[in-house]
Amino acid sequence: MERHFERELEDLNKALLMMGGRSETLVLKSVEALRRLDTELAAEIFAEDKIIDRMELDIDERCLRLLALQQPMAKDLRLITGALKICNDLERVGDHAVNIAGSVVRLAGKPLLKPLIDIPRMASLANDMLHEALDAFVRRDAETARRICMRDDAVDQLNDQIFRELVTFMVEDPHTITRAMELILVARNLERVADLATNIAEEVVFIAEARVIKHHAEEATERPA
Amino acid sequence: MERHFERELEDLNKALLMMGGRSETLVLKSVEALRRLDTELAAEIFAEDKIIDRMELDIDERCLRLLALQQPMAKDLRLITGALKICNDLERVGDHAVNIAGSVVRLAGKPLLKPLIDIPRMASLANDMLHEALDAFVRRDAETARRICMRDDAVDQLNDQIFRELVTFMVEDPHTITRAMELILVARNLERVADLATNIAEEVVFIAEARVIKHHAEEATERPA
Repeated sequence: MERHFERELEDLNKALLMMGGRSETLVLKSVEALRRLDTELAAEIFAEDKIIDRMELDIDERCLRLLALQQPMAKDLRLITGALKICNDLERVGDHAVNIAGSVVRLAGKPLLKPLIDIPRMASLANDMLHEALDAFVRRDAETARRICMRDDAVDQLNDQIFRELVTFMVEDPHTITRAMELILVARNLERVADLATNIAEEVVFIAEARVIKHHAEEATERPA
Repeated sequence: MERHFERELEDLNKALLMMGGRSETLVLKSVEALRRLDTELAAEIFAEDKIIDRMELDIDERCLRLLALQQPMAKDLRLITGALKICNDLERVGDHAVNIAGSVVRLAGKPLLKPLIDIPRMASLANDMLHEALDAFVRRDAETARRICMRDDAVDQLNDQIFRELVTFMVEDPHTITRAMELILVARNLERVADLATNIAEEVVFIAEARVIKHHAEEATERPA
Protein backbone atom coordinates (compact mmCIF):
# COMPACT_ATOMS: atom_id res chain seq x y z
CA MET A 1 0.00 0.00 0.00
CA GLU A 2 2.70 2.45 1.05
CA ARG A 3 4.80 1.84 -2.04
CA HIS A 4 1.74 2.02 -4.22
CA PHE A 5 1.00 5.47 -2.73
CA GLU A 6 4.58 6.61 -3.41
CA ARG A 7 4.22 5.57 -7.01
CA GLU A 8 0.91 7.38 -7.36
CA LEU A 9 2.46 10.57 -5.98
CA GLU A 10 5.31 10.18 -8.44
CA ASP A 11 2.80 9.80 -11.28
CA LEU A 12 0.99 12.92 -10.08
CA ASN A 13 4.27 14.84 -10.17
CA LYS A 14 4.96 13.65 -13.68
CA ALA A 15 1.47 14.50 -14.89
CA LEU A 16 1.82 18.05 -13.53
CA LEU A 17 5.21 18.51 -15.15
CA MET A 18 3.93 17.25 -18.46
CA MET A 19 1.03 19.69 -18.25
CA GLY A 20 3.44 22.46 -17.27
CA GLY A 21 5.69 21.73 -20.24
CA ARG A 22 2.75 21.88 -22.61
CA SER A 23 1.54 25.16 -21.14
CA GLU A 24 4.96 26.72 -21.53
CA THR A 25 5.23 25.56 -25.12
CA LEU A 26 1.79 26.98 -25.86
CA VAL A 27 2.75 30.44 -24.61
CA LEU A 28 5.93 30.45 -26.71
CA LYS A 29 3.98 29.22 -29.71
CA SER A 30 1.39 31.97 -29.30
CA VAL A 31 4.05 34.68 -29.37
CA GLU A 32 5.70 33.01 -32.35
CA ALA A 33 2.32 32.97 -34.12
CA LEU A 34 2.00 36.67 -33.34
CA ARG A 35 5.46 37.44 -34.67
CA ARG A 36 4.67 35.68 -37.93
CA LEU A 37 0.94 36.52 -37.89
CA ASP A 38 0.49 32.86 -38.64
CA THR A 39 -3.13 31.75 -38.38
CA GLU A 40 -2.26 28.09 -38.90
CA LEU A 41 -0.05 28.15 -35.85
CA ALA A 42 -2.87 29.93 -34.01
CA ALA A 43 -5.21 27.09 -34.97
CA GLU A 44 -2.77 24.57 -33.51
CA ILE A 45 -2.88 26.50 -30.25
CA PHE A 46 -6.67 26.24 -30.04
CA ALA A 47 -6.41 22.48 -30.52
CA GLU A 48 -3.56 21.97 -28.08
CA ASP A 49 -5.29 23.95 -25.38
CA LYS A 50 -8.00 21.28 -25.35
CA ILE A 51 -5.34 18.71 -24.46
CA ILE A 52 -4.27 20.91 -21.54
CA ASP A 53 -7.91 21.14 -20.43
CA ARG A 54 -8.13 17.36 -20.37
CA MET A 55 -4.89 17.14 -18.43
CA GLU A 56 -6.41 19.38 -15.76
CA LEU A 57 -9.42 17.09 -15.43
CA ASP A 58 -7.12 14.07 -15.19
CA ILE A 59 -4.98 15.65 -12.46
CA ASP A 60 -8.06 16.79 -10.54
CA GLU A 61 -9.32 13.25 -10.60
CA ARG A 62 -5.99 11.78 -9.46
CA CYS A 63 -5.87 14.24 -6.56
CA LEU A 64 -9.38 13.42 -5.39
CA ARG A 65 -8.68 9.71 -5.61
CA LEU A 66 -5.49 10.08 -3.60
CA LEU A 67 -7.25 12.18 -0.97
CA ALA A 68 -10.09 9.67 -0.68
CA LEU A 69 -8.09 6.45 -0.68
CA GLN A 70 -4.80 7.38 0.95
CA GLN A 71 -5.77 9.90 3.60
CA PRO A 72 -2.46 11.69 3.24
CA MET A 73 -0.99 13.85 5.97
CA ALA A 74 1.36 16.82 6.21
CA LYS A 75 3.65 17.20 3.21
CA ASP A 76 1.82 14.67 1.04
CA LEU A 77 -1.45 16.44 1.77
CA ARG A 78 0.09 19.78 0.85
CA LEU A 79 1.44 18.28 -2.35
CA ILE A 80 -1.96 16.97 -3.39
CA THR A 81 -3.93 20.12 -2.57
CA GLY A 82 -1.08 22.10 -4.15
CA ALA A 83 -1.39 20.00 -7.31
CA LEU A 84 -5.11 20.82 -7.44
CA LYS A 85 -4.24 24.51 -7.48
CA ILE A 86 -1.24 24.32 -9.78
CA CYS A 87 -3.12 22.39 -12.45
CA ASN A 88 -5.81 25.07 -12.38
CA ASP A 89 -3.13 27.75 -12.80
CA LEU A 90 -1.60 25.86 -15.72
CA GLU A 91 -4.97 25.49 -17.37
CA ARG A 92 -5.33 29.26 -17.18
CA VAL A 93 -1.88 29.71 -18.71
CA GLY A 94 -3.23 27.72 -21.66
CA ASP A 95 -6.24 30.04 -21.82
CA HIS A 96 -3.97 33.06 -22.06
CA ALA A 97 -2.09 31.45 -24.97
CA VAL A 98 -5.49 30.93 -26.61
CA ASN A 99 -6.37 34.60 -26.07
CA ILE A 100 -3.12 35.60 -27.75
CA ALA A 101 -3.88 33.23 -30.64
CA GLY A 102 -7.25 35.01 -30.92
CA SER A 103 -5.41 38.32 -31.33
CA VAL A 104 -3.25 36.70 -34.03
CA VAL A 105 -6.37 35.71 -35.97
CA ARG A 106 -7.78 39.24 -35.73
CA LEU A 107 -4.46 40.84 -36.69
CA ALA A 108 -3.67 38.52 -39.59
CA GLY A 109 -3.52 40.18 -43.01
CA LYS A 110 -2.82 43.63 -41.55
CA PRO A 111 0.72 44.99 -41.38
CA LEU A 112 2.26 44.72 -37.91
CA LEU A 113 2.24 48.07 -36.14
CA LYS A 114 5.95 47.89 -35.35
CA PRO A 115 8.63 45.26 -34.98
CA LEU A 116 7.83 43.28 -31.86
CA ILE A 117 10.55 43.76 -29.28
CA ASP A 118 9.03 44.27 -25.86
CA ILE A 119 6.29 41.67 -26.24
CA PRO A 120 8.71 38.80 -27.01
CA ARG A 121 10.86 40.04 -24.12
CA MET A 122 7.87 40.00 -21.82
CA ALA A 123 6.91 36.53 -23.08
CA SER A 124 10.37 35.26 -22.39
CA LEU A 125 10.39 36.72 -18.85
CA ALA A 126 6.96 35.26 -18.09
CA ASN A 127 7.88 31.91 -19.56
CA ASP A 128 11.16 31.75 -17.65
CA MET A 129 9.23 32.38 -14.44
CA LEU A 130 6.83 29.59 -15.33
CA HIS A 131 9.62 27.19 -16.24
CA GLU A 132 11.55 27.91 -13.06
CA ALA A 133 8.44 27.65 -10.90
CA LEU A 134 7.87 24.16 -12.27
CA ASP A 135 11.52 23.37 -11.73
CA ALA A 136 11.27 24.59 -8.12
CA PHE A 137 8.20 22.39 -7.79
CA VAL A 138 10.16 19.30 -8.87
CA ARG A 139 12.94 20.04 -6.40
CA ARG A 140 10.60 21.36 -3.66
CA ASP A 141 12.93 24.34 -3.69
CA ALA A 142 11.32 27.11 -1.63
CA GLU A 143 14.26 29.49 -1.99
CA THR A 144 14.12 29.56 -5.78
CA ALA A 145 10.35 29.82 -5.57
CA ARG A 146 10.57 32.91 -3.37
CA ARG A 147 12.93 34.58 -5.82
CA ILE A 148 10.54 33.91 -8.70
CA CYS A 149 7.79 35.84 -6.91
CA MET A 150 10.02 38.90 -6.78
CA ARG A 151 10.41 38.94 -10.56
CA ASP A 152 6.74 39.64 -11.17
CA ASP A 153 7.35 43.41 -10.87
CA ALA A 154 9.67 43.49 -13.88
CA VAL A 155 6.92 41.96 -16.02
CA ASP A 156 4.38 44.45 -14.69
CA GLN A 157 6.68 47.33 -15.55
CA LEU A 158 7.21 46.03 -19.06
CA ASN A 159 3.45 45.75 -19.43
CA ASP A 160 2.98 49.39 -18.35
CA GLN A 161 5.69 50.48 -20.76
CA ILE A 162 4.10 48.61 -23.66
CA PHE A 163 0.74 50.10 -22.75
CA ARG A 164 2.07 53.67 -22.75
CA GLU A 165 3.95 53.23 -26.02
CA LEU A 166 0.93 51.79 -27.79
CA VAL A 167 -1.35 54.55 -26.51
CA THR A 168 1.11 57.02 -28.07
CA PHE A 169 0.74 55.21 -31.40
CA MET A 170 -3.04 55.37 -31.14
CA VAL A 171 -3.07 59.07 -30.31
CA GLU A 172 -0.73 59.92 -33.19
CA ASP A 173 -2.56 57.85 -35.77
CA PRO A 174 -6.09 56.61 -35.14
CA HIS A 175 -5.67 54.08 -37.95
CA THR A 176 -3.50 52.09 -35.61
CA ILE A 177 -6.12 51.85 -32.86
CA THR A 178 -7.50 48.38 -33.41
CA ARG A 179 -4.05 46.90 -34.00
CA ALA A 180 -2.58 48.65 -30.97
CA MET A 181 -5.50 47.46 -28.83
CA GLU A 182 -4.75 43.85 -29.75
CA LEU A 183 -1.12 44.23 -28.73
CA ILE A 184 -2.17 45.78 -25.42
CA LEU A 185 -4.37 42.75 -24.82
CA VAL A 186 -1.51 40.39 -25.73
CA ALA A 187 0.73 42.12 -23.18
CA ARG A 188 -1.96 41.81 -20.52
CA ASN A 189 -2.24 38.10 -21.20
CA LEU A 190 1.50 37.71 -20.77
CA GLU A 191 1.36 39.68 -17.54
CA ARG A 192 -1.26 37.21 -16.31
CA VAL A 193 1.03 34.29 -17.23
CA ALA A 194 3.67 35.82 -14.95
CA ASP A 195 1.04 36.19 -12.21
CA LEU A 196 0.16 32.53 -12.56
CA ALA A 197 3.83 31.55 -12.40
CA THR A 198 3.97 33.55 -9.17
CA ASN A 199 0.93 31.67 -7.85
CA ILE A 200 2.66 28.39 -8.62
CA ALA A 201 5.88 29.53 -6.92
CA GLU A 202 3.87 30.53 -3.83
CA GLU A 203 2.31 27.10 -3.81
CA VAL A 204 5.77 25.49 -4.01
CA VAL A 205 6.83 27.39 -0.88
CA PHE A 206 3.72 26.12 0.88
CA ILE A 207 4.31 22.52 -0.21
CA ALA A 208 7.96 22.62 0.84
CA GLU A 209 7.72 24.58 4.08
CA ALA A 210 4.05 24.75 5.09
CA ARG A 211 4.41 28.53 5.05
CA VAL A 212 1.87 30.73 3.32
CA ILE A 213 3.49 33.59 1.40
CA LYS A 214 0.59 34.65 -0.82
CA HIS A 215 -1.04 38.01 -0.06
CA HIS A 216 2.19 38.78 1.85
CA ALA A 217 0.90 36.65 4.70
CA GLU A 218 4.48 35.91 5.71
CA GLU A 219 5.40 39.58 6.10
CA ALA A 220 2.14 40.08 7.96
CA THR A 221 3.07 37.50 10.56
CA GLU A 222 6.69 38.59 10.74
CA ARG A 223 5.86 42.24 11.16
CA PRO A 224 2.57 42.47 13.03
CA ALA A 225 0.77 45.78 12.59
CA MET B 1 -16.28 13.34 16.51
CA GLU B 2 -18.95 12.97 13.86
CA ARG B 3 -20.98 15.89 15.16
CA HIS B 4 -17.88 17.98 15.52
CA PHE B 5 -17.09 17.31 11.85
CA GLU B 6 -20.61 18.31 10.83
CA ARG B 7 -20.20 21.58 12.68
CA GLU B 8 -16.85 22.26 11.05
CA LEU B 9 -18.35 21.69 7.61
CA GLU B 10 -21.17 24.06 8.51
CA ASP B 11 -18.59 26.67 9.58
CA LEU B 12 -16.74 26.19 6.30
CA ASN B 13 -19.97 26.79 4.40
CA LYS B 14 -20.62 29.96 6.35
CA ALA B 15 -17.08 31.25 5.87
CA LEU B 16 -17.38 30.75 2.10
CA LEU B 17 -20.71 32.53 1.97
CA MET B 18 -19.42 35.42 3.99
CA MET B 19 -16.46 35.71 1.63
CA GLY B 20 -18.82 35.45 -1.35
CA GLY B 21 -21.03 38.23 0.01
CA ARG B 22 -18.04 40.50 0.46
CA SER B 23 -16.76 39.79 -3.04
CA GLU B 24 -20.16 40.61 -4.54
CA THR B 25 -20.37 43.85 -2.58
CA LEU B 26 -16.90 44.82 -3.72
CA VAL B 27 -17.80 44.42 -7.39
CA LEU B 28 -20.94 46.55 -6.98
CA LYS B 29 -18.95 49.13 -5.05
CA SER B 30 -16.30 49.30 -7.77
CA VAL B 31 -18.90 50.06 -10.43
CA GLU B 32 -20.53 52.63 -8.16
CA ALA B 33 -17.12 54.24 -7.64
CA LEU B 34 -16.73 54.33 -11.42
CA ARG B 35 -20.15 55.89 -11.93
CA ARG B 36 -19.33 58.64 -9.44
CA LEU B 37 -15.57 58.71 -10.20
CA ASP B 38 -15.21 58.57 -6.43
CA THR B 39 -11.62 57.96 -5.35
CA GLU B 40 -12.56 57.64 -1.68
CA LEU B 41 -14.82 54.76 -2.50
CA ALA B 42 -11.99 53.31 -4.61
CA ALA B 43 -9.69 53.51 -1.58
CA GLU B 44 -12.24 51.58 0.48
CA ILE B 45 -12.14 48.85 -2.15
CA PHE B 46 -8.37 48.49 -1.89
CA ALA B 47 -8.70 48.10 1.89
CA GLU B 48 -11.62 45.68 1.77
CA ASP B 49 -9.89 43.45 -0.74
CA LYS B 50 -7.26 42.75 1.90
CA ILE B 51 -10.00 41.37 4.14
CA ILE B 52 -11.07 39.07 1.32
CA ASP B 53 -7.46 37.94 0.89
CA ARG B 54 -7.32 37.01 4.56
CA MET B 55 -10.60 35.15 4.26
CA GLU B 56 -9.08 33.04 1.49
CA LEU B 57 -6.13 32.10 3.69
CA ASP B 58 -8.51 31.22 6.55
CA ILE B 59 -10.67 29.00 4.32
CA ASP B 60 -7.60 27.31 2.82
CA GLU B 61 -6.42 26.50 6.31
CA ARG B 62 -9.80 25.15 7.41
CA CYS B 63 -9.92 22.91 4.32
CA LEU B 64 -6.46 21.50 4.92
CA ARG B 65 -7.24 20.86 8.58
CA LEU B 66 -10.46 19.07 7.67
CA LEU B 67 -8.70 16.96 5.05
CA ALA B 68 -5.93 16.02 7.48
CA LEU B 69 -8.01 15.32 10.57
CA GLN B 70 -11.30 14.03 9.24
CA GLN B 71 -10.32 12.03 6.19
CA PRO B 72 -13.59 12.87 4.48
CA MET B 73 -15.06 10.76 1.70
CA ALA B 74 -17.34 11.26 -1.29
CA LYS B 75 -19.57 14.32 -1.00
CA ASP B 76 -17.74 15.80 1.99
CA LEU B 77 -14.44 15.43 0.17
CA ARG B 78 -15.90 17.13 -2.90
CA LEU B 79 -17.22 19.93 -0.71
CA ILE B 80 -13.84 20.55 0.86
CA THR B 81 -11.80 20.43 -2.35
CA GLY B 82 -14.57 22.51 -3.97
CA ALA B 83 -14.26 25.07 -1.18
CA LEU B 84 -10.51 25.31 -1.88
CA LYS B 85 -11.30 26.22 -5.48
CA ILE B 86 -14.26 28.48 -4.80
CA CYS B 87 -12.36 30.60 -2.28
CA ASN B 88 -9.62 31.07 -4.85
CA ASP B 89 -12.23 32.16 -7.41
CA LEU B 90 -13.74 34.61 -4.93
CA GLU B 91 -10.35 36.05 -4.12
CA ARG B 92 -9.89 36.71 -7.82
CA VAL B 93 -13.30 38.40 -7.97
CA GLY B 94 -11.94 40.78 -5.32
CA ASP B 95 -8.87 41.40 -7.49
CA HIS B 96 -11.08 42.38 -10.40
CA ALA B 97 -12.93 44.89 -8.21
CA VAL B 98 -9.50 46.27 -7.25
CA ASN B 99 -8.54 46.58 -10.93
CA ILE B 100 -11.75 48.52 -11.58
CA ALA B 101 -10.98 50.76 -8.59
CA GLY B 102 -7.56 51.37 -10.19
CA SER B 103 -9.31 52.58 -13.35
CA VAL B 104 -11.46 54.88 -11.18
CA VAL B 105 -8.33 56.46 -9.71
CA ARG B 106 -6.84 57.01 -13.16
CA LEU B 107 -10.11 58.40 -14.57
CA ALA B 108 -10.89 60.71 -11.65
CA GLY B 109 -10.92 64.41 -12.48
CA LYS B 110 -11.58 63.82 -16.17
CA PRO B 111 -15.10 64.04 -17.59
CA LEU B 112 -16.72 60.66 -18.18
CA LEU B 113 -16.65 59.71 -21.84
CA LYS B 114 -20.35 58.99 -21.94
CA PRO B 115 -23.11 58.10 -19.51
CA LEU B 116 -22.42 54.59 -18.31
CA ILE B 117 -25.18 52.26 -19.42
CA ASP B 118 -23.71 49.00 -20.68
CA ILE B 119 -21.02 48.70 -18.01
CA PRO B 120 -23.49 48.84 -15.09
CA ARG B 121 -25.66 46.38 -17.00
CA MET B 122 -22.73 44.07 -17.44
CA ALA B 123 -21.82 44.45 -13.76
CA SER B 124 -25.32 43.57 -12.74
CA LEU B 125 -25.38 40.48 -15.00
CA ALA B 126 -22.01 39.31 -13.68
CA ASN B 127 -22.97 39.97 -10.09
CA ASP B 128 -26.30 38.17 -10.45
CA MET B 129 -24.41 35.15 -11.77
CA LEU B 130 -22.06 35.30 -8.80
CA HIS B 131 -24.90 35.70 -6.31
CA GLU B 132 -26.87 32.82 -7.80
CA ALA B 133 -23.81 30.59 -7.98
CA LEU B 134 -23.30 31.09 -4.25
CA ASP B 135 -26.98 30.48 -3.68
CA ALA B 136 -26.77 27.25 -5.70
CA PHE B 137 -23.76 26.33 -3.58
CA VAL B 138 -25.78 26.71 -0.36
CA ARG B 139 -28.59 24.57 -1.71
CA ARG B 140 -26.28 22.13 -3.57
CA ASP B 141 -28.52 22.92 -6.53
CA ALA B 142 -26.88 21.52 -9.66
CA GLU B 143 -29.76 22.49 -11.95
CA THR B 144 -29.54 26.19 -11.13
CA ALA B 145 -25.76 25.96 -11.37
CA ARG B 146 -25.96 24.54 -14.89
CA ARG B 147 -28.24 27.37 -15.96
CA ILE B 148 -25.80 29.95 -14.61
CA CYS B 149 -23.04 28.59 -16.86
CA MET B 150 -25.21 29.23 -19.89
CA ARG B 151 -25.52 32.93 -19.08
CA ASP B 152 -21.83 33.59 -19.55
CA ASP B 153 -22.34 34.17 -23.29
CA ALA B 154 -24.61 37.19 -22.70
CA VAL B 155 -21.86 38.84 -20.67
CA ASP B 156 -19.26 38.06 -23.35
CA GLN B 157 -21.51 39.62 -26.00
CA LEU B 158 -21.98 42.75 -23.93
CA ASN B 159 -18.22 42.94 -23.51
CA ASP B 160 -17.70 42.72 -27.29
CA GLN B 161 -20.33 45.39 -27.85
CA ILE B 162 -18.73 47.75 -25.31
CA PHE B 163 -15.34 47.13 -26.92
CA ARG B 164 -16.61 47.98 -30.40
CA GLU B 165 -18.42 51.10 -29.26
CA LEU B 166 -15.39 52.42 -27.39
CA VAL B 167 -13.07 51.76 -30.32
CA THR B 168 -15.44 53.92 -32.41
CA PHE B 169 -15.06 56.71 -29.87
CA MET B 170 -11.29 56.42 -30.02
CA VAL B 171 -11.17 56.46 -33.80
CA GLU B 172 -13.44 59.51 -34.00
CA ASP B 173 -11.61 61.49 -31.35
CA PRO B 174 -8.11 60.51 -30.22
CA HIS B 175 -8.55 62.67 -27.11
CA THR B 176 -10.82 59.98 -25.77
CA ILE B 177 -8.26 57.20 -26.13
CA THR B 178 -6.95 56.88 -22.59
CA ARG B 179 -10.42 57.19 -21.08
CA ALA B 180 -11.90 54.70 -23.52
CA MET B 181 -9.06 52.27 -22.81
CA GLU B 182 -9.88 52.34 -19.10
CA LEU B 183 -13.52 51.53 -19.78
CA ILE B 184 -12.49 48.65 -22.03
CA LEU B 185 -10.37 47.31 -19.18
CA VAL B 186 -13.28 47.71 -16.74
CA ALA B 187 -15.52 45.70 -19.05
CA ARG B 188 -12.89 42.97 -19.31
CA ASN B 189 -12.69 42.76 -15.55
CA LEU B 190 -16.44 42.34 -15.34
CA GLU B 191 -16.32 39.66 -18.01
CA ARG B 192 -13.80 37.82 -15.84
CA VAL B 193 -16.12 38.09 -12.84
CA ALA B 194 -18.77 36.31 -14.89
CA ASP B 195 -16.19 33.65 -15.84
CA LEU B 196 -15.38 33.12 -12.18
CA ALA B 197 -19.09 32.85 -11.34
CA THR B 198 -19.23 30.17 -14.03
CA ASN B 199 -16.27 28.36 -12.44
CA ILE B 200 -18.07 28.40 -9.11
CA ALA B 201 -21.27 27.09 -10.68
CA GLU B 202 -19.30 24.27 -12.35
CA GLU B 203 -17.84 23.42 -8.97
CA VAL B 204 -21.34 23.32 -7.44
CA VAL B 205 -22.40 20.75 -10.03
CA PHE B 206 -19.36 18.67 -9.13
CA ILE B 207 -20.02 18.91 -5.39
CA ALA B 208 -23.67 18.00 -5.81
CA GLU B 209 -23.46 15.31 -8.47
CA ALA B 210 -19.80 14.27 -8.79
CA ARG B 211 -20.07 15.18 -12.47
CA VAL B 212 -17.45 17.33 -14.15
CA ILE B 213 -18.96 19.90 -16.52
CA LYS B 214 -15.99 22.23 -17.00
CA HIS B 215 -14.30 22.20 -20.41
CA HIS B 216 -17.55 20.61 -21.65
CA ALA B 217 -16.35 17.32 -20.23
CA GLU B 218 -19.96 16.26 -19.83
CA GLU B 219 -20.80 16.69 -23.49
CA ALA B 220 -17.57 14.94 -24.37
CA THR B 221 -18.58 11.84 -22.46
CA GLU B 222 -22.17 11.95 -23.61
CA ARG B 223 -21.24 12.30 -27.25
CA PRO B 224 -18.03 10.40 -27.83
CA ALA B 225 -16.13 11.49 -30.92
